[in-house]
Amino acid sequence: MKTCEVTFETSDEVSPVSVAAGALLSDAAILAGVEINEPCGGQGRCGRCTVQVVSGSVRRRSTVRLTQDDIAEGHTLSCQTVITEDIRVVVQPWGKIERRLTTDRVVGDVQVPAGYSAKEVQSMRRIPLNLAPPSMDDQTDDWSRLQTALRSEAKIELSGLSLGLLRQMGPTLRESGWAVTAVVDTWEEAGSALLKGRLQALYPGHVPEEAPLWGIAVDIGTTTVTVWLVDLLSGKVVTQASEYNGQIARGEDVISRIVYATKEGGSKTMVDLVLGTINGLIAAVCAEMKISPGDIQKASVAGNPTMMHLFLGIPAQSIRLSPYVPVVNQLPMVTGAAAGLMINPEAVVDCLPGVASYVGSDITAGVLSSGLSEMVENTLFIDVGTNGEIVLGNRDWLITCACSAGPAFEGAGVTHGMRATKGAIEDVWIAGGHSAKAYEPTSRVIGNVRPIGICGSGLISLLAEMFLTGIVDKGGGINLSLPTPRVRTGEHGPEYVVAWGSETEDRRDIVITAVDIDNLKRAKAAIFAGFNVLAASVGVEFESIDQLLIGGSFGKYINVEKAVQIGLLPDLPTDKFQFLGNTSAKGAYYALLDRNIRAQLTQIASRMTYLELSADNSFYEAFMSASFLPHTDLDRFPSVEAAVEKHQ
Amino acid sequence: MKTCEVTFETSDEVSPVSVAAGALLSDAAILAGVEINEPCGGQGRCGRCTVQVVSGSVRRRSTVRLTQDDIAEGHTLSCQTVITEDIRVVVQPWGKIERRLTTDRVVGDVQVPAGYSAKEVQSMRRIPLNLAPPSMDDQTDDWSRLQTALRSEAKIELSGLSLGLLRQMGPTLRESGWAVTAVVDTWEEAGSALLKGRLQALYPGHVPEEAPLWGIAVDIGTTTVTVWLVDLLSGKVVTQASEYNGQIARGEDVISRIVYATKEGGSKTMVDLVLGTINGLIAAVCAEMKISPGDIQKASVAGNPTMMHLFLGIPAQSIRLSPYVPVVNQLPMVTGAAAGLMINPEAVVDCLPGVASYVGSDITAGVLSSGLSEMVENTLFIDVGTNGEIVLGNRDWLITCACSAGPAFEGAGVTHGMRATKGAIEDVWIAGGHSAKAYEPTSRVIGNVRPIGICGSGLISLLAEMFLTGIVDKGGGINLSLPTPRVRTGEHGPEYVVAWGSETEDRRDIVITAVDIDNLKRAKAAIFAGFNVLAASVGVEFESIDQLLIGGSFGKYINVEKAVQIGLLPDLPTDKFQFLGNTSAKGAYYALLDRNIRAQLTQIASRMTYLELSADNSFYEAFMSASFLPHTDLDRFPSVEAAVEKHQ
Repeated sequence: MKTCEVTFETSDEVSPVSVAAGALLSDAAILAGVEINEPCGGQGRCGRCTVQVVSGSVRRRSTVRLTQDDIAEGHTLSCQTVITEDIRVVVQPWGKIERRLTTDRVVGDVQVPAGYSAKEVQSMRRIPLNLAPPSMDDQTDDWSRLQTALRSEAKIELSGLSLGLLRQMGPTLRESGWAVTAVVDTWEEAGSALLKGRLQALYPGHVPEEAPLWGIAVDIGTTTVTVWLVDLLSGKVVTQASEYNGQIARGEDVISRIVYATKEGGSKTMVDLVLGTINGLIAAVCAEMKISPGDIQKASVAGNPTMMHLFLGIPAQSIRLSPYVPVVNQLPMVTGAAAGLMINPEAVVDCLPGVASYVGSDITAGVLSSGLSEMVENTLFIDVGTNGEIVLGNRDWLITCACSAGPAFEGAGVTHGMRATKGAIEDVWIAGGHSAKAYEPTSRVIGNVRPIGICGSGLISLLAEMFLTGIVDKGGGINLSLPTPRVRTGEHGPEYVVAWGSETEDRRDIVITAVDIDNLKRAKAAIFAGFNVLAASVGVEFESIDQLLIGGSFGKYINVEKAVQIGLLPDLPTDKFQFLGNTSAKGAYYALLDRNIRAQLTQIASRMTYLELSADNSFYEAFMSASFLPHTDLDRFPSVEAAVEKHQ
Repeated sequence: MKTCEVTFETSDEVSPVSVAAGALLSDAAILAGVEINEPCGGQGRCGRCTVQVVSGSVRRRSTVRLTQDDIAEGHTLSCQTVITEDIRVVVQPWGKIERRLTTDRVVGDVQVPAGYSAKEVQSMRRIPLNLAPPSMDDQTDDWSRLQTALRSEAKIELSGLSLGLLRQMGPTLRESGWAVTAVVDTWEEAGSALLKGRLQALYPGHVPEEAPLWGIAVDIGTTTVTVWLVDLLSGKVVTQASEYNGQIARGEDVISRIVYATKEGGSKTMVDLVLGTINGLIAAVCAEMKISPGDIQKASVAGNPTMMHLFLGIPAQSIRLSPYVPVVNQLPMVTGAAAGLMINPEAVVDCLPGVASYVGSDITAGVLSSGLSEMVENTLFIDVGTNGEIVLGNRDWLITCACSAGPAFEGAGVTHGMRATKGAIEDVWIAGGHSAKAYEPTSRVIGNVRPIGICGSGLISLLAEMFLTGIVDKGGGINLSLPTPRVRTGEHGPEYVVAWGSETEDRRDIVITAVDIDNLKRAKAAIFAGFNVLAASVGVEFESIDQLLIGGSFGKYINVEKAVQIGLLPDLPTDKFQFLGNTSAKGAYYALLDRNIRAQLTQIASRMTYLELSADNSFYEAFMSASFLPHTDLDRFPSVEAAVEKHQ
């Protein structure tokens, strides 16, 4: 039998060890006396036993949680690494590993579209102008003078003009000595050699060419609102911020919001609440980048139809009542002032087009940004939010439906739920009943701080682990008879303690209650049921789905395996799944960058066939079947069945 | 010598009289013992001796104050009628004559343009629609449903949409059972078979076809604001109202208004004041017609550039300072809400295009409505307002200038001045010093009521009579040594009493003071000087001017002879003069009716050469020469010289 020498480089001096070829790297570490964390018990799930092989090669059983770059640099999971030759291994300090795993979760992820050229596709233009000052021989009025300059210097024909700008124009031109910078929203018009344009801002002097030109992509979710601040010239997302939608205080789901908005003064309250949230986020991103919100020149807004109606103060009651018709799918362009956004009042606000009462621009934007509408493969796209919207199709056909999941996966409506920000538990592992640390959890917290609560991915992870370890049963009930103080009866009934007050930020125990579990179960059941009904309506079997794209704001690092274990996602090979993050915000971002996107979204919207679940009896049946962990029909979840057997 | 028999028909029985052929009808009346009023002393100026010749014909020396219809019906001025054969004459009761002379002064005058067809030229359309209600099989959104209906039923392609309408749309459609009436502003677009349209209002049910569709023509004068209420379908002006511009409280002329607007908060005050006036007038015309202001769908607004800037809150200081450049001549279309008008917030407000800092849309509208720009003859057009704007030209060329006259001719800035409404003295005759009633005035009051004050035409008339009778001298000074109690020294210096308190509405004496006369003199001098400089600049002699068109709000029945006597108008044959009333409001009215007019106005504006008087030294010289009654150079006023000789 071949023997291999393994040398560990750590902060302490450690002697090399010899192991048989085929041994696990984690076992070699134990032999060498090197401590490597294994919170998940060597199942290759948590990524915390990652080390770096700097000499020699190894065989990797799994590379979960590692990027291609990580692998190229030799990073590997000790518990999943088979030794085949002499190797040298660097064991990095714990914090360094953790940083790589939990760095900033969104901004770094957004790639500027390949080949993005503001000159070619950006509608917003910033043009430095030197105007000839007026004289007694040239008494041309200011507006004509500016029009002439833009025509000759930028081949732009201005049309229309707001009173707001007319009121600024004279003083700005004179105080700046007739050297100004114009910000113009442009569009092409058939049969015209010139671009058409609408003046949006006039700055004194010449703004440096390299200075950013600001825009925002806004995703108005029922539960979570997200704003991305974008430099329209480079295309870069420079920062982002998310917050719970202030409307939550008046109803958790779209139906209760519509009901509230129908009351006297309710519509205005709804508008004010969501504007409070969006404007707060705008203030936050602007403060971070030290810019003035008034310099934001363009906004693209995506959201479900109810959110869009309530954002713009349009009565939404027809969405709720049969035959479920929105007032408008193709929303008109409005100005910042008309929309009530705290940006340039003249800024163009592009509310993206939706499909039907419950499938809005969040989904057209998601379909666009995921690339689904161009794919050859049969693809299922799920946007997991308060509503779970599902699209099935490819470049030839698209069918869609929406089901009400509730806000649990966004961390709302759950006792210690929170958004996926610093202090949120985003992943949990629970030791099995037979181990020394029976029923004890280990968790990963965003930002490596003391935990504050649990975000959506953490809740999925937690529920899956509780199910696998038998803390909850198939029906979601907590087993109070287990020999651990973590299972107890609290104020709101049975609960499991995820973190003791001694470990948490605010010194209170972080728990998950039976009620929380019920919320999560109903959320996942609604999505899985929608999924079933949609696939059945077009006669597509789960097995024939080539890929499954998942968008949503529950975090990017959601664990597919765990999502399958609770029955949120179908039991398909892991490599068919792809998590895309906030696809709605991403679609809005694409629309912000490229003036051709809106037409594409309109086209996508018109291509989508909408299935009204509220008119479909099979939905309720599918929902009931899915209201178990993972499902009444375990045959549909063979991998989960196997995992349960292994654990219990 | 031929003898003619004259039979008078009066309320009393009167015997026929025989007079020699060639005798005046007024002499025949005295012979017959028939009392006919002759306030002007038989000069053929007042029209009060009008009678009706019902049998036989007469020779008329003058037909001043008679319309063509009057003449056709046999009406004639007794003092100007030569008897040539046997005639029968009806002497109507005094009141009846008076009514014909002083009835409603504007509405009756406005003729709907010949051949006006709303279908062909009106941009505003009102379309009854029956929409197919939505169902589970047709979940089309409301806005698309409405667009489809308008496309199929009216060949109109809607573009854009306001949030205001989106907010009303759903409930309106449902509450009306999907039968609605849409009001749409339309325009043609090159290359499109469909009309383009912007939805402005959606009424539940079907509005009756014969119901009016309301619009307003607005003339914002520096001193007087006028609103005409128009049925866009029939084209008829149904009523009108005028009021002093509320901004007068902050400055009498455009310069002082600009100065005020430049102060902190001044611009907003100016906007608020003029909006107060306009909205008050809108409320008045709507109350009169018992309609809701929110049903006014379109407004056309004309005014000088300062008025337009201050109406829209655009800084106007550059108009006042060399090189005298407005911010904008071609004003953008705005909505009722943006303009702050109390009409449908979505209504289109068309602020008509102007030429230069002191020649605005009031003048382009005046040139259009007077027909000047299409005339073969050399035509002089004067719009007498607070600024006197003058245009000289014909269909081949147009030159224009503006001079600051002050508000005197609109009755403002004069002790007992008032607008030409009920109670205003609009014409005055003063008996010469040699007559029995030496220096006693007779006046005509609008509405035949006790006088309240004197309007512009009354002031011109009064000043001319005072000059002819020697009450004022060439320099405008009042001769205090005349043997009449009407000439006296009042609180503000020398004055002439036009009406004693015993005759007036408010029991106070109505006077004209030396200061008032000075104001009038400066006003007329500015206009006459502008007239001179403009004609001189293109080398046109007064004599070669074929016609003189006069617009302004000082009243339609201004007496040319008297205007010439004070030197306001050049001494040309009476038949060259034509009074057109408020040409600015009339132009706005034309633009309100016909969507092609705006382009015509723009074209007129571009054709006009603007002469900046403030940059012209000859203006001051001409002004000084014109600051006498009628002028330093009496040779230029031969008819006035003759009249003075005759009177004194």
